[in-house]
Amino acid sequence: MNDVLKKPRKVYVTRTVEFNAAHRLHNPDFSDDQNREIYGKCGNAHGHGHNYELEITVSGIVDRATGFLLDMKELKKILEQEITTRFDHKHLNFDVKELRDTVPSTEILAVIVWDILTDALQHYINKEITLHEVKIHETRKNSVSYLGE
Amino acid sequence: MNDVLKKPRKVYVTRTVEFNAAHRLHNPDFSDDQNREIYGKCGNAHGHGHNYELEITVSGIVDRATGFLLDMKELKKILEQEITTRFDHKHLNFDVKELRDTVPSTEILAVIVWDILTDALQHYINKEITLHEVKIHETRKNSVSYLGE
Amino acid sequence: MNDVLKKPRKVYVTRTVEFNAAHRLHNPDFSDDQNREIYGKCGNAHGHGHNYELEITVSGIVDRATGFLLDMKELKKILEQEITTRFDHKHLNFDVKELRDTVPSTEILAVIVWDILTDALQHYINKEITLHEVKIHETRKNSVSYLGE
Amino acid sequence: MNDVLKKPRKVYVTRTVEFNAAHRLHNPDFSDDQNREIYGKCGNAHGHGHNYELEITVSGIVDRATGFLLDMKELKKILEQEITTRFDHKHLNFDVKELRDTVPSTEILAVIVWDILTDALQHYINKEITLHEVKIHETRKNSVSYLGE
Amino acid sequence: MNDVLKKPRKVYVTRTVEFNAAHRLHNPDFSDDQNREIYGKCGNAHGHGHNYELEITVSGIVDRATGFLLDMKELKKILEQEITTRFDHKHLNFDVKELRDTVPSTEILAVIVWDILTDALQHYINKEITLHEVKIHETRKNSVSYLGE
Amino acid sequence: MNDVLKKPRKVYVTRTVEFNAAHRLHNPDFSDDQNREIYGKCGNAHGHGHNYELEITVSGIVDRATGFLLDMKELKKILEQEITTRFDHKHLNFDVKELRDTVPSTEILAVIVWDILTDALQHYINKEITLHEVKIHETRKNSVSYLGE
Repeated sequence: MNDVLKKPRKVYVTRTVEFNAAHRLHNPDFSDDQNREIYGKCGNAHGHGHNYELEITVSGIVDRATGFLLDMKELKKILEQEITTRFDHKHLNFDVKELRDTVPSTEILAVIVWDILTDALQHYINKEITLHEVKIHETRKNSVSYLGE
Repeated sequence: MNDVLKKPRKVYVTRTVEFNAAHRLHNPDFSDDQNREIYGKCGNAHGHGHNYELEITVSGIVDRATGFLLDMKELKKILEQEITTRFDHKHLNFDVKELRDTVPSTEILAVIVWDILTDALQHYINKEITLHEVKIHETRKNSVSYLGE
Repeated sequence: MNDVLKKPRKVYVTRTVEFNAAHRLHNPDFSDDQNREIYGKCGNAHGHGHNYELEITVSGIVDRATGFLLDMKELKKILEQEITTRFDHKHLNFDVKELRDTVPSTEILAVIVWDILTDALQHYINKEITLHEVKIHETRKNSVSYLGE
Repeated sequence: MNDVLKKPRKVYVTRTVEFNAAHRLHNPDFSDDQNREIYGKCGNAHGHGHNYELEITVSGIVDRATGFLLDMKELKKILEQEITTRFDHKHLNFDVKELRDTVPSTEILAVIVWDILTDALQHYINKEITLHEVKIHETRKNSVSYLGE
Repeated sequence: MNDVLKKPRKVYVTRTVEFNAAHRLHNPDFSDDQNREIYGKCGNAHGHGHNYELEITVSGIVDRATGFLLDMKELKKILEQEITTRFDHKHLNFDVKELRDTVPSTEILAVIVWDILTDALQHYINKEITLHEVKIHETRKNSVSYLGE
Repeated sequence: MNDVLKKPRKVYVTRTVEFNAAHRLHNPDFSDDQNREIYGKCGNAHGHGHNYELEITVSGIVDRATGFLLDMKELKKILEQEITTRFDHKHLNFDVKELRDTVPSTEILAVIVWDILTDALQHYINKEITLHEVKIHETRKNSVSYLGE
């Protein structure tokens, strides 16, 4: 079976997850004027919110026996535990410990999701799977990618 | 010009607008247990949020001279003033006077947008334009329509 | 709370569900030539498949206390039990008892989903909720709606 | 076969077609100032363009033998001949005879497509198929529907 | 003409194609328990199916005379012959010779499409066009890329 | 604040903009037959048009104080001035000086947008922000990327 895999083949597998969250962009180290200047309407005191859509990409050599890079059920479980449970239906400024002392911009969110998933993949998956990219769509028009650079 | 309009033609014109907002589903008249039972994770104390997408549909007879149902620039201005300014980058429970004493569910949001736009269309547009439907997509999977019934 | 609902308000709530299934369009009452003529490549002996996307719309008066038409958790449970479990990751011609003696076209699928959900809504939901529309997207280009007519 | 169709079932089948065209909104009966006031940037002398997306919906009773409302291959052929050939990769103001003495707004386009398809369906399809709706998306934000009213 | 191309410019051109197919994930070398453990509901005996969406990306220097990387009509013909004809409205396990002794996972599908198109591009296109990426979306949530590594 | 940024983090920020334009693919240096052979229906004398969708990606190190790569309001202003004003509601062959002596293919459009934005970013943004990619979707099926290679 799967002779096409006699030669090692490196693929990139992307799984999309969504969460719905509130956030407020505000830096207590800045003056009110600076906050207004920098964050504009994103600094609204009670926050606003988004349907965040994350594309999580992992890479590695396809397993010759299964034809899979990795068990998607495992990846889904990790994303459920590490992303959905942590961020979904939350106010990012108050409810997520990893974001406490940050301005929860999409840039910082992408970096933190990367750090969380790098740890989680090492812990749960005993194979040569590498996190390749975390891409977060905040709206249909804005997105941020982090590749660990 | 536009002889195809000698016969009156009734069309439905839909304009899509988006706003990003936080909300919390919570009814102070309910006990904590009732709130938890009814609203689940949507009752999170600090709220969560969405990219709301609204499809606003108006109907009427196409104007024979212009070939338009209505001046889209006017409709865009009304939606900017009445929808975007009111709801975008807001926490619906705190920042929107029309939603103060409500549970800001998508159902109630659709009804309130209908009431606001019915007034606004009568005020700004001196033609036989009727609001036909307000459809709000809260997520890619959930939407609510209100047609004034 | 929710004074905007003093007047009864009828809304339409749509929930989208997806399932991935194989099917083959073939009528044993037809000759081979007729089958080829009518079903073309959709009659391929081992079947082909689709990511079916269903928009299920129910309607009724918004509940004044909760601000909801119905408990979305309940609707999700019904759709899980009655749609996903029955159709997802199945070959419609072999694995779904309701489709046994049919040509599993999108038209017939829409009608059968309507019949299943009409029963299920009566059974599970003790309120005045009416099934309004079952719309099935077979591909990005083809869809079928059934409204019980 | 298809006993579920013993009772007549009326369905709505939608087929999506796309065409890429240029147009200019300009009425020679208006003064330059009026044209500028009414059509704004849409009146640019050489025109601009869109990827038009049309949802064509026909309705009728599902055929008990085939399980289809109509032969989709036939509908595709009609849409190819009557819509794609006529409008795709054209400048609507110059290249489409039916639009010659019109302002090719989306409203007028929807009406003209309706008139063309009503004729074509009567001519090609010898069954009780009714054109139900022509919906044209001009951009992701603007669309117009015509239902023959 | 096209002086902007005096300097060689390397671009990446992506063409999207879709096919609708059935597949079953099952490895005869595994025990029933292993198959159940590894492939879960994807191992359903008669298969299930998907609307597969492929993004095929080729790269090279833009031709200074035509302004194109390559003749898109040629690329469309190759994709029609090599992808659509081979995979559309097929059961991947039975009807596609290249997939016979494989588990037709999206990973393996991406690798095989890469191998097929690498050959086809060399055969049909006498220019310096390189296949850059094959990306297959199996569902809205899962995709796999192969870049020949 | 933002201790997660103590280590420099390089991100890629993508902003999507759209414009609606007409174009005609035609090279006066070619014979009529060559033009017909090469550009087919894209050579229609009066042109045709598209809803162009551009994904503009810039990269750099996230600012530790603001949590942003750059001020999105600034990027939006640049894109408004340099892209929307130049291309939206225009006929690319007649109305855009940068495209005058070109065949306005998507390939050339991507290259020219790259050149324009490279200049503009240097001029307006006094930070280490690099243009990473210009990706233009001409239709849902065709897109071109240019990365400055």
